Amino acid sequence: MPELNLNFASDNTGPVARPVMEAMVAANSGGAMPYGNDPWMPQVTDRLRALFDWPEAEVVLVTVGTAANALALAGIVHPWQSILCHPIAHIDEDECGAPEFYTAGAKLVHVAGDNGRIDPKALARKIAGTGGSVHNVQKGALSLTNVTEAGTLYSLEELAALTTLARDAGIATHLDGARFANACAALGCSAADMVRGFDMVSFGGTKNGCMGVEAVVMRDPAHARELHLRRKRAGHLWSKHRFLSAQMLAYLTDDLWLTNACAANAAGQRLAAGLRDIGAVMAWEPQANMIFCRLPRAAHDRAQKEAQYYVMDDTDAPLCRLVCDFTKTDAEVDRLLELLAG
Amino acid sequence: MPELNLNFASDNTGPVARPVMEAMVAANSGGAMPYGNDPWMPQVTDRLRALFDWPEAEVVLVTVGTAANALALAGIVHPWQSILCHPIAHIDEDECGAPEFYTAGAKLVHVAGDNGRIDPKALARKIAGTGGSVHNVQKGALSLTNVTEAGTLYSLEELAALTTLARDAGIATHLDGARFANACAALGCSAADMVRGFDMVSFGGTKNGCMGVEAVVMRDPAHARELHLRRKRAGHLWSKHRFLSAQMLAYLTDDLWLTNACAANAAGQRLAAGLRDIGAVMAWEPQANMIFCRLPRAAHDRAQKEAQYYVMDDTDAPLCRLVCDFTKTDAEVDRLLELLAG
Amino acid sequence: MPELNLNFASDNTGPVARPVMEAMVAANSGGAMPYGNDPWMPQVTDRLRALFDWPEAEVVLVTVGTAANALALAGIVHPWQSILCHPIAHIDEDECGAPEFYTAGAKLVHVAGDNGRIDPKALARKIAGTGGSVHNVQKGALSLTNVTEAGTLYSLEELAALTTLARDAGIATHLDGARFANACAALGCSAADMVRGFDMVSFGGTKNGCMGVEAVVMRDPAHARELHLRRKRAGHLWSKHRFLSAQMLAYLTDDLWLTNACAANAAGQRLAAGLRDIGAVMAWEPQANMIFCRLPRAAHDRAQKEAQYYVMDDTDAPLCRLVCDFTKTDAEVDRLLELLAG
Amino acid sequence: MPELNLNFASDNTGPVARPVMEAMVAANSGGAMPYGNDPWMPQVTDRLRALFDWPEAEVVLVTVGTAANALALAGIVHPWQSILCHPIAHIDEDECGAPEFYTAGAKLVHVAGDNGRIDPKALARKIAGTGGSVHNVQKGALSLTNVTEAGTLYSLEELAALTTLARDAGIATHLDGARFANACAALGCSAADMVRGFDMVSFGGTKNGCMGVEAVVMRDPAHARELHLRRKRAGHLWSKHRFLSAQMLAYLTDDLWLTNACAANAAGQRLAAGLRDIGAVMAWEPQANMIFCRLPRAAHDRAQKEAQYYVMDDTDAPLCRLVCDFTKTDAEVDRLLELLAG
Repeated sequence: MPELNLNFASDNTGPVARPVMEAMVAANSGGAMPYGNDPWMPQVTDRLRALFDWPEAEVVLVTVGTAANALALAGIVHPWQSILCHPIAHIDEDECGAPEFYTAGAKLVHVAGDNGRIDPKALARKIAGTGGSVHNVQKGALSLTNVTEAGTLYSLEELAALTTLARDAGIATHLDGARFANACAALGCSAADMVRGFDMVSFGGTKNGCMGVEAVVMRDPAHARELHLRRKRAGHLWSKHRFLSAQMLAYLTDDLWLTNACAANAAGQRLAAGLRDIGAVMAWEPQANMIFCRLPRAAHDRAQKEAQYYVMDDTDAPLCRLVCDFTKTDAEVDRLLELLAG
Repeated sequence: MPELNLNFASDNTGPVARPVMEAMVAANSGGAMPYGNDPWMPQVTDRLRALFDWPEAEVVLVTVGTAANALALAGIVHPWQSILCHPIAHIDEDECGAPEFYTAGAKLVHVAGDNGRIDPKALARKIAGTGGSVHNVQKGALSLTNVTEAGTLYSLEELAALTTLARDAGIATHLDGARFANACAALGCSAADMVRGFDMVSFGGTKNGCMGVEAVVMRDPAHARELHLRRKRAGHLWSKHRFLSAQMLAYLTDDLWLTNACAANAAGQRLAAGLRDIGAVMAWEPQANMIFCRLPRAAHDRAQKEAQYYVMDDTDAPLCRLVCDFTKTDAEVDRLLELLAG
Repeated sequence: MPELNLNFASDNTGPVARPVMEAMVAANSGGAMPYGNDPWMPQVTDRLRALFDWPEAEVVLVTVGTAANALALAGIVHPWQSILCHPIAHIDEDECGAPEFYTAGAKLVHVAGDNGRIDPKALARKIAGTGGSVHNVQKGALSLTNVTEAGTLYSLEELAALTTLARDAGIATHLDGARFANACAALGCSAADMVRGFDMVSFGGTKNGCMGVEAVVMRDPAHARELHLRRKRAGHLWSKHRFLSAQMLAYLTDDLWLTNACAANAAGQRLAAGLRDIGAVMAWEPQANMIFCRLPRAAHDRAQKEAQYYVMDDTDAPLCRLVCDFTKTDAEVDRLLELLAG
Repeated sequence: MPELNLNFASDNTGPVARPVMEAMVAANSGGAMPYGNDPWMPQVTDRLRALFDWPEAEVVLVTVGTAANALALAGIVHPWQSILCHPIAHIDEDECGAPEFYTAGAKLVHVAGDNGRIDPKALARKIAGTGGSVHNVQKGALSLTNVTEAGTLYSLEELAALTTLARDAGIATHLDGARFANACAALGCSAADMVRGFDMVSFGGTKNGCMGVEAVVMRDPAHARELHLRRKRAGHLWSKHRFLSAQMLAYLTDDLWLTNACAANAAGQRLAAGLRDIGAVMAWEPQANMIFCRLPRAAHDRAQKEAQYYVMDDTDAPLCRLVCDFTKTDAEVDRLLELLAG
């Protein structure tokens, strides 16, 4: 019987999916031209164009989500422009200023909303209130995240409402898709549905079964050359690029991206239900594979001895983040619940 | 009989060494904490500290040599300072301005010298001539590359002469070690000998058997925290970091780094000898695994049909770059020579 | 009888004070060494050191307040750090991202509070909540403005409370002193009292009688050289620098800075009282020379025909900003009130 | 009899021309809207458009030549592009990296040539040799200076040859016109002739009779908005802007710019002739108001007691730079020569 993996700290603590690792091993044969000139990359581009229904999209691969987001944003905002985002957005909270670095100093501006989602009314007000004088930071981009950093979802209608507001105001749109697949799986929508209102997408692979690969997908190829130059200049152009292409190609083959996400979400939902049963109070409705909840102190103290997850504060009912990666089994979820139940 | 790999374009067209790939596969089991908190990383740090005889050094891993160089340089120069380098340095010629990006605009300043090596006299003159007024870019860093971009070597004495000049002038020193192992192998020196005069080293793995891993090694840990913050901010902190640690650990185990480099250099020397026999004219003395030479046109035309290498100009005797990676066999080298000989 | 100047748009619409202009004309005789090597600059430094009771302070002059703030901030924060400021701070709202530009991408983070003043409790919470992990933007600086952008004042006690919180947390402190003199005049305190808790001060001259000169004053000279290099690199080092020195010296002579501020504040208070009489509703308590209030629509419509001031919204009772510069006479204030009264 | 001004260190050690100072004093009356909304600025724009025969040009004023150059260059190059310039160009040697700062890291690349002038053949070779791969810094801009930093001139034909080469290669063109007027005066050409091949011009006023004003003139207004935003963001938008407009307007009135330059050049030529007579050896042919020559040691030692000029080395025949500003009288020039002659 395999050892139970009770690491619920993040989906990035999980392993690489077997088909991805096998593809990497298979790619490791003889020589291949470097820097994206390997034979697999054109297939990656074709697959993502088809998946998004963006026939002319430009695709570049990097290995870290922070880099994907920062590159994508640098491609759509000037240094004197703003990037509108939710106050708990990963780009604002968890990237140590990478967007500011890559954009040469654009300003991240908060637009609030409940449950980790930007409120369209707040967005409309923010857009209306953004001064156009030379003294003000100018309107630039809107960045949304689905699954949100709260573990909740934007519906397709909500995405459409927000991106339409932005586009009508001449604001470019970016989707942080670190958990793109989990959002598709939870909404039951296609990737093309998800990206409809966007200009730039960070399509994540790392959290969902890859080793380290994220696609930056740019709908309109007019500025594709700049995207490549920015990637190189940021030190993100791999020489042995075949190992990025191979990962992404395996991830896109036989719907592995979706299958893994369904598994992660199912585990997340099983865990959420069990947590409620043992008295956890959800901070936000967990709609995919990430749960924020307050655990009874005693339960938490018991579980911490064997399981890993993030604790956001140290109170009688500590706020905890638990995430299920795509490998989480019922046995692992149940064992954690058992520990918590005592 | 395995197919011959006639790709001599670069050492980065080669595959991943078996021990490295096996270590990556082995690391892919269950969960591991992300961002360098995996169990392998402390061993990597210990090994590199011992190898360099830098007991307090800070080590961070990234996946691309350009990133390693740019991060290392950003750690030792201010934006208003210069980085002295050879006119054909990789940081100046082949990184699309990554050092300028990471340093927020430091200036790369050429110091000439024959055979891809900075001339100590030229360095002394440049240092003496650098103005100290507020109008001038200030003295900052010296960056050397060994193996040089010309395929030649600095001897330990030459390194010492240059780094001493720099240090006496208050100039920090960086070694671009994309082919660090090849230089050690060719000089028959230890890694500690190689790094003696430096403050920062980019210790390359990718070109010599890894998939994508380079260590930035900082001798003095006083500013270690900044190095970590810069890496994160640049989007180079891997979440599934165990796969970087595992690569580097395998590379440092049983002297794999040195073994591979010896193999690559031996192939390079065999190739160089053969090229001379068929009338190639060396642009510089090939001292490791990289050869720049002018090939007879007819020989070149024949070889290009089956083999890959870079052509720098299109003349009757085209200037070509041929590089042997660590997997190059005698049979592969000989087949290329056979093609050229016609 | 001189024409009445009914421009209340800003204190920067006002003229240059006579002693300042005379000093500039007087300085325009023969040659003077450039770049701060004129004979007046050492006196400026001496005066400001004495005024602030900062005996070792470094002083550099620039001509624009935005530049003074951005240079000052760049001298105390790293790119990966935050600058804590009030949501309506000039550095965040009105400088088109200059702090981000000069700091190479530091992040301005809001700390709220009523009446344009940061609430010490909010500051304490923000400091406590700032993560120390490598994923987070790090703690860097606190920037306060006195007179605030709401036209209100921090008392000396409030300044001390905030700067002490910051310093205890290792956070550097900056005072945006665009209206430094007005704050001193209104509080009846010395300049030394005002700067006690700060590391860097932007000491404004332009709004209060100079043509264009602001002093960046750095308490601790350890990094003075960098300040000079940053100024040069930003294109703010004047060649004919004598005309900046002469302005600032005249401004510091015979307490001109304080005299002008007293005049501006007195006019502002006269105007505020009169506005209340005609039914204006103050947005915040006007404590110096700047007033934000809602004017009755009819009054506003009448006044706009002859007078200038900024209108922030277009409602039945529009929110207006009226500022008195140091030249505003009783007759001018009364004429505006007369227009408004109808 | 007025005291003789024997400061020959630079044209920026000179005073402000009387008409310019009078215009500034005259502008100092009552209120004026800030930030370029003063009544004089539209006239400045009209005059420069007419002078350059660029009917749609955008004009922004700043106070420092370094800022003018850096803003102009930032308007025409991306961070990943190069700026081709002569090895002794002011932008490379004397601006402490301001172009790198403003452009977010573009690379200044040397193109050599005798006498401070870029050789068209060298430019053609450099353009041909600039790689187009993603690894290379891309072609961006060519920056020329007339009067050159060597005190020599480009003829109109030479300018045309260089700018045509650039434009044919898709390279934008910038003229550093710190001594624009001196070049026009020396060549006997119109301003329109001078700017014919350029996209961006830094039109200097400070060295030639203004206090501190330089115009950035952008031929094609398509990106005019960005120029204004960059100026603001760099802290170079004056609030009391009327004093910049007034300076520039006076400078453009009654050909003051040209009259002053003729005076400076005449003094320079008188000085050059006299220097030759006393045995000075010209480093380059002095074609305007700036002279680089080797002075006999004894002559130099005598002169240094009373006169100021820059000494570039300390040899038996020190290399000296002597510059005549527009106020230099025959008596002053002759007195210097007398001192040197002994």
